Amino acid sequence: MRDVNIFPSIRVRKTPFWDRVVEAGVKSCSVYNRMLLPVRFETAEIDYFHLKEHVQLWDVACERQIEVVGPDATRLIELLSPRPIDNLKVGKCLYFPVVDQYGGMLNDPVLLKLSDTRYWISIADSDYLLWVLALVAALKINVRVFEPDVSPLGVQGPKSDELMARVFGKEITELKFFDFTILEFQGKEHYVSRSGYSKRGGFEIYVEGTKNGIPMWDALMEAGEDLSVRAGGPNYPERVEGGLLSYGTDMTMKHTPYESGLGKYCDVHSTPNCIGYNALKRVVEEGWDREIRSLDIEGGKVPLCHVPWKVTVDGEFAGHVTSVTWSPGYKTNVAIGMIEKDFWGPDTEVLVHAPDYPRKGKVRQSFYT
Amino acid sequence: MRDVNIFPSIRVRKTPFWDRVVEAGVKSCSVYNRMLLPVRFETAEIDYFHLKEHVQLWDVACERQIEVVGPDATRLIELLSPRPIDNLKVGKCLYFPVVDQYGGMLNDPVLLKLSDTRYWISIADSDYLLWVLALVAALKINVRVFEPDVSPLGVQGPKSDELMARVFGKEITELKFFDFTILEFQGKEHYVSRSGYSKRGGFEIYVEGTKNGIPMWDALMEAGEDLSVRAGGPNYPERVEGGLLSYGTDMTMKHTPYESGLGKYCDVHSTPNCIGYNALKRVVEEGWDREIRSLDIEGGKVPLCHVPWKVTVDGEFAGHVTSVTWSPGYKTNVAIGMIEKDFWGPDTEVLVHAPDYPRKGKVRQSFYT
Repeated sequence: MRDVNIFPSIRVRKTPFWDRVVEAGVKSCSVYNRMLLPVRFETAEIDYFHLKEHVQLWDVACERQIEVVGPDATRLIELLSPRPIDNLKVGKCLYFPVVDQYGGMLNDPVLLKLSDTRYWISIADSDYLLWVLALVAALKINVRVFEPDVSPLGVQGPKSDELMARVFGKEITELKFFDFTILEFQGKEHYVSRSGYSKRGGFEIYVEGTKNGIPMWDALMEAGEDLSVRAGGPNYPERVEGGLLSYGTDMTMKHTPYESGLGKYCDVHSTPNCIGYNALKRVVEEGWDREIRSLDIEGGKVPLCHVPWKVTVDGEFAGHVTSVTWSPGYKTNVAIGMIEKDFWGPDTEVLVHAPDYPRKGKVRQSFYT
Repeated sequence: MRDVNIFPSIRVRKTPFWDRVVEAGVKSCSVYNRMLLPVRFETAEIDYFHLKEHVQLWDVACERQIEVVGPDATRLIELLSPRPIDNLKVGKCLYFPVVDQYGGMLNDPVLLKLSDTRYWISIADSDYLLWVLALVAALKINVRVFEPDVSPLGVQGPKSDELMARVFGKEITELKFFDFTILEFQGKEHYVSRSGYSKRGGFEIYVEGTKNGIPMWDALMEAGEDLSVRAGGPNYPERVEGGLLSYGTDMTMKHTPYESGLGKYCDVHSTPNCIGYNALKRVVEEGWDREIRSLDIEGGKVPLCHVPWKVTVDGEFAGHVTSVTWSPGYKTNVAIGMIEKDFWGPDTEVLVHAPDYPRKGKVRQSFYT
């Protein structure tokens, strides 16, 4: 598969950090929420080991925010997901699988409660704003819904506490996982959470205002020179071995949160206002027949996976893998797959129909850490 | 601005024609509805003149279809747009600006009426399915809404009638502009319309079934060898000089259809069921302050436009241009802009703040043909 060029346009936007990303020598991009998403700077392997040892700045501006503000904000948020928000306090984030009327997943955002009448929905790759806006129109809900000029900057890796402390003060490191607070930088306030799309720990700074992107980037780069800070991005092997799902890849609107392995976040009985309530109640009562699993796959490095690869057991259909890659750390191919019930038990031996040749694989008990 | 690589994934999909597109030597792509959209094969200039003289196959699979089927299909369609559909007959297409409750444009699809209870909405670049699905859920409308496995293949250019006649028979050339019919190919039926995203004339074949993409492509390529048929794609200069708007570039949800120059398609008084009725009625009563215009811009070839460029008149804000490029045919820079009322009259002289240097420009009466 040869690579092809893409160039920024108004429709497929540059990010506020883009000039620095180009200077840092970005090699490959994806497009996510109609924004360029830098994903590779050296090789996936070099990027991987650097992320595991040092600290990286990630241009994840493509994680767009949907702001919901107004008297009915909580009423609207309750419509969206089978995850209860009764106990969600201001200053907390929540992983928030959102569904349609059939229980299918429309996105897997992080919800931030900014006040009792104001939320941000920090979205994965779908125009979820259109869904929310249509509900507001049809049900005459008293809120304003819009995309603010906010662009997340990830600080990821084991040295991210040290780097953040240098730039914003030691208190920032007291932030607990999935809590957020406000930091001040050059006279302007920005939300910051302990979160991120890696298992290496770190922060996401919700940079307010496009023009503040480069100064924030530069301050972190300068302060972290002796920490080997450099530009990075969501790292495919690190994400896949750690089981961080990709909406649109590992699960789509054809899958329920239960099939997507997110049942532990859902409580359908205490979320009767959710628009998928009836559908999901039936799912919980009747069970489901496929679920996300971690797999190992034998043989040398797998080729690029750009369509789902079939999985079989003794010739019988057993599911698909959707994210597959060589893990430089674990020295095996790792995968995320949607596996049929009869075969989803740990240590089940399967055959993965890679485009080069069929390979033996094994269902794992859980993802790598 | 350097180019960066992008690679196909499950989330940013290949099209059914992709292998042939790669073999044809695609140079640049965009991403449109989470699909790769091939846009350049040689230079923009060579592609442009070829399109104006010969015939090209365009992989526009990214024009996804939303199928709406069921007893309430017409009721649902009437909610979406200020364009009346009372007189729309089965077998007809309609350019169909769709709006939200504020009158803002959510997409500018083509609507195909397949039967009295079945429509396709052939969408531009936004997840409009989410908007439609939410209305269905909230208003309990009795329809099914989904994305079928249908991928448009464009046949564009002055020799497209000749090419289509060779493969599908002479009758196909009797099809009128924006009519569609059914053609049979290798025992399978596909819709085909006289339409396309160029001003050169041609057809769009709605190829049913991913696996039928390559055979259809090959049959057309083979039959057209002596017509100089080759792979092409939406051509930026040809689109801009001809005034074919790009949703997400030239207009967004912040613009009404009237501002977008699409008022001629709208009749707010006869579409009281449209969800934007109240907002658009006010717009029609009160008028609007900016509108899409064609512009010429002086000086040598303009650089790549990836953010809106400000337009002024005597230092006063006069709007933005959003699509700007050198026209190899008209030997001038051509542009599409959203121009303020005081300055939108024909022959108004403006200053366009291009990133290299400010250039004199002029508002035109209409687009090129």
